[in-house]
Amino acid sequence: MRCFHLLFVVVALLATAAADAKPVLRAVTDAPAGVASDSSDELYCDGWRLSVETGNAGPWSAIPSRCAGFVRAYMEGERYASDSAVAAADSLAFAAQALASGDGGARPAWVFDVDETLLSNSPYYAVNGWGSQEFNETSFDEWVDVAKAPALPSSLKLYKELQGLGIHIILLTGRSEFQRNATEVNLFFAGYHSWEKLILRQSPDIGKTAVQYKSERRAALEAEGFKILGNSGDQWSDLLGLPMATRSFKLPNPMYFIS
Amino acid sequence: MRCFHLLFVVVALLATAAADAKPVLRAVTDAPAGVASDSSDELYCDGWRLSVETGNAGPWSAIPSRCAGFVRAYMEGERYASDSAVAAADSLAFAAQALASGDGGARPAWVFDVDETLLSNSPYYAVNGWGSQEFNETSFDEWVDVAKAPALPSSLKLYKELQGLGIHIILLTGRSEFQRNATEVNLFFAGYHSWEKLILRQSPDIGKTAVQYKSERRAALEAEGFKILGNSGDQWSDLLGLPMATRSFKLPNPMYFIS
Repeated sequence: MRCFHLLFVVVALLATAAADAKPVLRAVTDAPAGVASDSSDELYCDGWRLSVETGNAGPWSAIPSRCAGFVRAYMEGERYASDSAVAAADSLAFAAQALASGDGGARPAWVFDVDETLLSNSPYYAVNGWGSQEFNETSFDEWVDVAKAPALPSSLKLYKELQGLGIHIILLTGRSEFQRNATEVNLFFAGYHSWEKLILRQSPDIGKTAVQYKSERRAALEAEGFKILGNSGDQWSDLLGLPMATRSFKLPNPMYFIS
Repeated sequence: MRCFHLLFVVVALLATAAADAKPVLRAVTDAPAGVASDSSDELYCDGWRLSVETGNAGPWSAIPSRCAGFVRAYMEGERYASDSAVAAADSLAFAAQALASGDGGARPAWVFDVDETLLSNSPYYAVNGWGSQEFNETSFDEWVDVAKAPALPSSLKLYKELQGLGIHIILLTGRSEFQRNATEVNLFFAGYHSWEKLILRQSPDIGKTAVQYKSERRAALEAEGFKILGNSGDQWSDLLGLPMATRSFKLPNPMYFIS
């Protein structure tokens, strides 16, 4: 994992272009990432992470400074991959059961977000403080344009398993239409193929919250006859708002918040 | 904490009566509670707990057998109290901000669940495998009638702080009307006072899911003119369903699931 990061550190530093799936805000924290945390920090930060993942935290703009090292350890260690894998297993179990009971209808569909869901921007965040540094739109957009974000492994596995079940795959991202090419190239690079649609923000969507934009697109999908069985995203704003999928799956992301 | 448990172990064993805030199902697991878990169990169980707390797990009937020791350690150690305290801090921060911006209206209200929210049944579960043993309705109902469940400390603190802000406190529990006396006695014992309403299941509510029953009661509260700013519960079924509170706060509970 660390070697992998080193490889992409180079790519990240050389990168040069643009994206729209960025965090709303990222404040500079007063502790450097990677500072070893004591046990009271560990306990607090574990609770803070739970509050983020359950949505209790509500909108937030910065990782608490005492948790910068905790987030780094979480992302670099086994827990991020493990937690993601449990979410994927939950998703597959539900999908198989739903299809078996005939709940999928004629056009069963699954909606995936892209960043921190199908694709992992860990190589970028590894050299940018794992969310603890102020968000730099220019450098993140450059990273997106390089189109070398790897798959989140458990999501790639789930994606293929859902396709194997005959479920239509819809990609619904906060990235903008002008990034379609970089996004497609990156998805192919990461091993994703044969999606039904890749939906990106159009001009009238700029400035909408993710909740509004994504809800409108789920409504349009339903109007087209898709039954949205499941929805996978790392932000609650990928999942909330009407209409919702039959079941929504929150993937972990302690690095940033998007409203 | 352990002395505290020992004290209540005696109470639990002597206890004798009835409740309706019980888990839907509790399967016997194939590993005894308290078995030391190895690091792969720890990693898996941490992901499993996250999937339960985010709702990814969906309906579940039993703690995975390899996680019985993990759940026990979580509940007996500092993490349960710490995670609950972070959720309470999130709640208070939101409430203060909402009132300051005038979002509370004329009758701002906060809905609390009772079991594993205001009251902790830890003394009961400490002698019943922390959720890893099959649910025994008779013994749990006896425990409820003893009316000695302590407050979840961070919830008691939050409750008083919300009262201090002038917010109306509504208690909405899955317990039944015949348990009103035991419930009130227990709430007073634990330090709770001056709630606006204590809503229990009436005869027509028996057999309804918690989502249906609690949603209907929230609708009735809104019809009475309450603005439900916040809702605190340890089950997603305390929080989901229309109308929802402005913000919902999921308290931790890895021991059981109620639909």
